[in-house]
Amino acid sequence: MKYIFILLLSSILVNAQIKTEALHLMPWPQKINLTDGNFALTKNFKVNITGNPNPRIFARTTQFLRRLDGRTGLFFEQGFVTKINEFPTAQLQINCVQNGKIGINQDESYQLEIKSDKININASSDLGAIHALETLLQLLQNNSTSYYFPTATISDFPRFTWRGLMIDAARHFQPIDVIKRNLDAMAAMKMNVFHWHLTDDQGWRIELKNHPKLTQLASDGQYYTQEEIKNIVHYADERGILVVPEIDVPGHASAILSVYPEVGSRIKFDQNTYAVERNSGIFTPTLDPSNPKTYQLLSEIFDEVCPLFSGNYFHIGGDENEGKDWDSNPKIQEFKKKNKLETNHDLQTYFTMQLIPMLKKHNKTLMGWEEIMTKNMSKEAIIHSWKGINEGVPAGQSLTTAAKNGYKTVLSNGFYIDLMLGVESHYLNDPMPKNSTLSAEEKAQILGGEATMWSELATPTTIDSRIWPRTAAIAERLWSDENVKDLKSLFQRMNTISFQLEGLGITHISNKGVLLRNISNYQNTAALEDFSKICEPLKVYSRNAGGTEYKTYSPFTLFADVCTPDAVDALGFNEAVSNYLKNKSTENQILVTDYLKKWIDIHSKLMALSANAPLIQPLLPLSKSVSDLSEQLLLKIEKKQAVNPNIMNDLVEKCNAKNHADVELAVYNSLKKLNSAE
Amino acid sequence: MKYIFILLLSSILVNAQIKTEALHLMPWPQKINLTDGNFALTKNFKVNITGNPNPRIFARTTQFLRRLDGRTGLFFEQGFVTKINEFPTAQLQINCVQNGKIGINQDESYQLEIKSDKININASSDLGAIHALETLLQLLQNNSTSYYFPTATISDFPRFTWRGLMIDAARHFQPIDVIKRNLDAMAAMKMNVFHWHLTDDQGWRIELKNHPKLTQLASDGQYYTQEEIKNIVHYADERGILVVPEIDVPGHASAILSVYPEVGSRIKFDQNTYAVERNSGIFTPTLDPSNPKTYQLLSEIFDEVCPLFSGNYFHIGGDENEGKDWDSNPKIQEFKKKNKLETNHDLQTYFTMQLIPMLKKHNKTLMGWEEIMTKNMSKEAIIHSWKGINEGVPAGQSLTTAAKNGYKTVLSNGFYIDLMLGVESHYLNDPMPKNSTLSAEEKAQILGGEATMWSELATPTTIDSRIWPRTAAIAERLWSDENVKDLKSLFQRMNTISFQLEGLGITHISNKGVLLRNISNYQNTAALEDFSKICEPLKVYSRNAGGTEYKTYSPFTLFADVCTPDAVDALGFNEAVSNYLKNKSTENQILVTDYLKKWIDIHSKLMALSANAPLIQPLLPLSKSVSDLSEQLLLKIEKKQAVNPNIMNDLVEKCNAKNHADVELAVYNSLKKLNSAE
Repeated sequence: MKYIFILLLSSILVNAQIKTEALHLMPWPQKINLTDGNFALTKNFKVNITGNPNPRIFARTTQFLRRLDGRTGLFFEQGFVTKINEFPTAQLQINCVQNGKIGINQDESYQLEIKSDKININASSDLGAIHALETLLQLLQNNSTSYYFPTATISDFPRFTWRGLMIDAARHFQPIDVIKRNLDAMAAMKMNVFHWHLTDDQGWRIELKNHPKLTQLASDGQYYTQEEIKNIVHYADERGILVVPEIDVPGHASAILSVYPEVGSRIKFDQNTYAVERNSGIFTPTLDPSNPKTYQLLSEIFDEVCPLFSGNYFHIGGDENEGKDWDSNPKIQEFKKKNKLETNHDLQTYFTMQLIPMLKKHNKTLMGWEEIMTKNMSKEAIIHSWKGINEGVPAGQSLTTAAKNGYKTVLSNGFYIDLMLGVESHYLNDPMPKNSTLSAEEKAQILGGEATMWSELATPTTIDSRIWPRTAAIAERLWSDENVKDLKSLFQRMNTISFQLEGLGITHISNKGVLLRNISNYQNTAALEDFSKICEPLKVYSRNAGGTEYKTYSPFTLFADVCTPDAVDALGFNEAVSNYLKNKSTENQILVTDYLKKWIDIHSKLMALSANAPLIQPLLPLSKSVSDLSEQLLLKIEKKQAVNPNIMNDLVEKCNAKNHADVELAVYNSLKKLNSAE
Repeated sequence: MKYIFILLLSSILVNAQIKTEALHLMPWPQKINLTDGNFALTKNFKVNITGNPNPRIFARTTQFLRRLDGRTGLFFEQGFVTKINEFPTAQLQINCVQNGKIGINQDESYQLEIKSDKININASSDLGAIHALETLLQLLQNNSTSYYFPTATISDFPRFTWRGLMIDAARHFQPIDVIKRNLDAMAAMKMNVFHWHLTDDQGWRIELKNHPKLTQLASDGQYYTQEEIKNIVHYADERGILVVPEIDVPGHASAILSVYPEVGSRIKFDQNTYAVERNSGIFTPTLDPSNPKTYQLLSEIFDEVCPLFSGNYFHIGGDENEGKDWDSNPKIQEFKKKNKLETNHDLQTYFTMQLIPMLKKHNKTLMGWEEIMTKNMSKEAIIHSWKGINEGVPAGQSLTTAAKNGYKTVLSNGFYIDLMLGVESHYLNDPMPKNSTLSAEEKAQILGGEATMWSELATPTTIDSRIWPRTAAIAERLWSDENVKDLKSLFQRMNTISFQLEGLGITHISNKGVLLRNISNYQNTAALEDFSKICEPLKVYSRNAGGTEYKTYSPFTLFADVCTPDAVDALGFNEAVSNYLKNKSTENQILVTDYLKKWIDIHSKLMALSANAPLIQPLLPLSKSVSDLSEQLLLKIEKKQAVNPNIMNDLVEKCNAKNHADVELAVYNSLKKLNSAE
């Protein structure tokens, strides 16, 4: 009897047509048309591939089957997809006209048509087809007993051709498995450029057979072998992703100079002049642009590194060289005069121009951070725009300048995900400047954007939670129509995507548990986890003011490492307060007071846990502040008692404290509003 | 004021002497003497190394500092330990007389002395010293605000020299990061042999430069490169662990024969005679022992594989060859006659004997599963005992036989962790047979034991939860005194160790959450998690009866993959019922009825969740059975109502069902007892 009931229920649900808004697709496709029907998934579901695709389509289709099977538990009969046209009558037909080439300005479009008994994917190449498979996975729906796709037609293509993620593997080394799972996540978000920051003051991370000392002396044993790099380039290629390596010169050079001090800019040097840096910040060690040995060394490095990467782009950094060691070295000053280089910028341009032919020899285009753009810089160079308000210039100014001056350019200002800002700041950051005076041709110079994950404060355990799910919003900004920007929809969809990214291997949710169990000293973590839902790590590098509080070897197992931007209960509380202040209905009041009661409860639980968990102690002043304020607010709201406004304001300001445990309360603004309004 | 209170409290706690039983050490040391005092940890804590150790001590000491810092958040000033005698006045002094050699029968002993202002580790070599560091980490204590070690002297050494873990990377490929984190966990449990099962019917997992087709055609792209293997051997060496590779011959040969059918035993063959196996079980494809080409191929393989492994042991499998293809091939039968080999066992011995010189050439001793032991087998071979009651022979019979016949031998029967049995069955399985008639010399032939993790049903996501924490109990059996076998103490200590293993990278806890979120379809997982605390996966391979229900590419994202042996609430409930039946006090009754109420609640929550989670449906019959029975038992116990015994017995037997979702209720026996007793 119950069985019949379930069957009836399921058929009812199957026939209830889903609305477009209920689909949790990211990035949102260019055109989608839902029709009234469903494609039911069974264990007989099979895929067939036709056309002339790159073999990467086989691996991706096999992975698609495994991911779909993992989510549905249907035990698909089809195991590995390895041949063209193996199942001509399969329900899912993928046709690719041609072999997709990894790079920018490729045709990545696809058509996805889901009928009740057939699914067709048509794409110019496998690059579009693998995007279609990701869309199809995101379309999966279910009722109580079965899984299906809604019938639909989707026509999709990217708005920008450069949709990148940079990972800094120098500040904290990020092992191969971290890189691989992030490439998987990038592919799921239809991103196509992985920018690999491989060297910096804190370490040299690439094996060089002709210069083995670089990793022997300047990596603490943490580096990628050449085989591992080739393996990653192949892994990325299989996912339609271009890898752009970065060797950051002439600044950020502590690591390389600790091995080769003779090419540094200090007047006097010995083997101890430079050392691998353990702190964060901008440091003076800089390559000597007047020394022919510098170019000899770089040429040898590029000769060995370039062939490891099949793509046509090479990032040489070029950022944050303040030239202090140049200024204080008479030999370099003389070189400047002799070569009629007026400023250090001119000298850096001289330096960078020497690298262009070294890279061109290997068919690579030079890319660099915006500081490389001076009047004599080659127009072939790609300008990576990163500065903004924090650096005292208008946001992304260099992007417009680059486009106007004939450079291809990529935006990262506004996409600095390590700043720990709310996702909306990244989501609404359009690479195409609004109301700009750029011509169509100039606009075409703007290739897209790149999320940058600097790793001063991110370890292999925590980096995923710093990248995801927020980078999905950046991926959408770079792929979808400029008018797709509804924040409510973003948060809903990102929430689902977050779980799907976990299914793909991203550890942003699971490692939170790992850290919480450590902080709680293996006690119950529920109260700590709840508290983390209203706390966010200190923002814009204020967590590590001066760059010396945290060394590269400091513990990153603290409460601030658990917390993330977009604290989930803060989002809920903000909405509850906003609704309550508009309409003080009983329902709206309860939504607010439930939070307040929860926070009182959290503090008492944290107090109890702290008796056996020293790492909880630093949180107590903050949990006490929010608990104390919540108590007072409850007296006002529920009991309608009068409370002393001075005491209240004092309590509110205590909730704005940023000196406890490197986190801040994400509910401060709403608490303040609530206090003022009552 | 509060600050003073905390200080007072902490000093009180610091002075309260911890009891030996409260220490959660695993494996338990041979001698421990706690004294009345503490060593307080501060950020100034430093380590100094003296003597003549292998450089692995530097990496291990650095890792020790990072792990201790990660747990305490103290921000130790010392970063990387790279030199002898760098801080002569450091609080922790490590002295190693000599450079430790990786292998068996090495001196792994250590002395650890903790005084209130100094810690001394003395060991013959770094091998003992790194064990001491693991013990020290396990000794960490805390009060509410600070961390300390209790003052103590520990003198420790292993009971057996072979303390192994085998991981099957053939059935399901286990990537490098899985292997690395398990090597870390092994080292934490003072285990010293990693047996790497690299080939089987389901795949060939080692790159061979001279036979590239093996991985091209028989690995589905999932294999270890030679560089990766060398990297793992080095990683293991740094942790004092010997790596023993296994290439399983002459049976378990589907993968190799799919590439080289000409060395198979079937009379007629072509390129399609053999195929990589997708199911589980014992299959007929077997190498042809009468064909010189077989030995030529194996010789070439060993010539390439042996140099990758620095250890002196090589496992050639040799198990489960039923000889069916030998029996049906006249050419092979003729070969038997010609060589006066009466049985297939004799023929296999002939085969195995050919391998001994191939391995000896590379300084490797041959090891094989017990089937290789026949009267003509070389006494140099090491016999790996695995059969027992499930195979119709007395448990570990071959171990005694081997010892008596002059073979060195290692026990795995009783250590088959993939059988999903309770930990006590492994813990109480002593490699030294009780009341045996073995002479002292014969006993010395028993090297130790090895946990075996076959991976038919274990993926990279789930394998850690199949290995840990249970293997810690096996590690203790192999290291500690034979009289250390209190089960209550085991469970208490294993619970703490389980969290510490997570801190080291083992994913057995965190991946449970990943799978639960998938099964719940991203809904709240609390009820599912609670239900998993009384369910265990079907045991002794009954989950995959016939070996065909699950293919290598089937989904292992199901509820049975979440569940583990030693279901935690079952342990609690068993104890509660046992106490209640002895003494029906109100307190004891409440402990029982709280469980029953919880299970009624779980079922109703699972019902609600299942409306939007098809993967929950298969659990409902079982959760309903336990809920229904719980309701009736509550009526009896709390309301003292009479219930129909037939109905009750029927409900109890429904709780014994093994046909739902591949799990069984671990509380069945206690429910039955409770029902009978009431």
